[in-house]
Amino acid sequence: MNFENFIRNIPDFPIKGIQFKDITTLLKDSEAFPMAVDYMYAPFRTEEITKIVGIESRGFIFGAALAYKLNVGFVPVRKPGKLPAATLSEEYQLEYGKDSLEIHKDAINSLDRVLIVDDLLATGGTAAATCALIKRLEGTIVGLTFLIELTQLKGREKLADYEVHSLIQYEI
Amino acid sequence: MNFENFIRNIPDFPIKGIQFKDITTLLKDSEAFPMAVDYMYAPFRTEEITKIVGIESRGFIFGAALAYKLNVGFVPVRKPGKLPAATLSEEYQLEYGKDSLEIHKDAINSLDRVLIVDDLLATGGTAAATCALIKRLEGTIVGLTFLIELTQLKGREKLADYEVHSLIQYEI
Repeated sequence: MNFENFIRNIPDFPIKGIQFKDITTLLKDSEAFPMAVDYMYAPFRTEEITKIVGIESRGFIFGAALAYKLNVGFVPVRKPGKLPAATLSEEYQLEYGKDSLEIHKDAINSLDRVLIVDDLLATGGTAAATCALIKRLEGTIVGLTFLIELTQLKGREKLADYEVHSLIQYEI
Repeated sequence: MNFENFIRNIPDFPIKGIQFKDITTLLKDSEAFPMAVDYMYAPFRTEEITKIVGIESRGFIFGAALAYKLNVGFVPVRKPGKLPAATLSEEYQLEYGKDSLEIHKDAINSLDRVLIVDDLLATGGTAAATCALIKRLEGTIVGLTFLIELTQLKGREKLADYEVHSLIQYEI
């Protein structure tokens, strides 16, 4: 299956000059969505995994499906103020300014082997912040898997310590 | 399995007086999460379903897992401005003021048989708005399924035309 055929390009969204990669055309397809989940997992199939971490909010879609497939727990990494119990927080750089991500302190422990899931690897800021959160909780990071990678933004360089997989690459 | 044992009560979140039902303690459990997805689906197992609609953002978690299980497409209903292509929008009432939800116009068609998934049925505002969006796209609503229902808020009354299922009920 050529997954790229299921991605819709939206020019000038959310701002002029950006070619937005719309994944909803893949999600709504009864063959492409489950198969994308399977292929995002495939490189890690020999690894023992105890938790899937999904990054808000499109990472929840692929991450939760994969957690269900593997019969393991799902852990959401969220924007500030969304998680109700005690959290750790990690900042990351935006083009202008900063933002941060949070995880529940009791979501991961030192016995966990974690696969991180998101729809898009761009600059790698959110992914690297998520890795930092998991390391602070002493979890082992098995790897990171993405549906789409924008290779020119070099997000992989921020994740050099880890196994990184993506299903579709765009050189834009 | 008593799913209620996996829900954590957080007093005074997000504001004083609210007893927030934290589902992350269920999500991270390798048995409770997949089984909750299975049980949320169980009452609809004899229905033909072609699409799962999940409501942003915790509805993505249960909805995507269920779409994966059933080998059907997943359709996100999102807060305004998040979906990049042509959308329909539907307003709903908040305690003070209004908000709205959006769906892609091409996400559902008249042949679709849709199950709507979310984590929480409270006043039913977002669920009823989601039903309206699906009806405007001429999809058939098979039913709605929730992890938690706050029965005193009577959300079910707004959904009287549909089959509604919840796994855990709180009378608060």
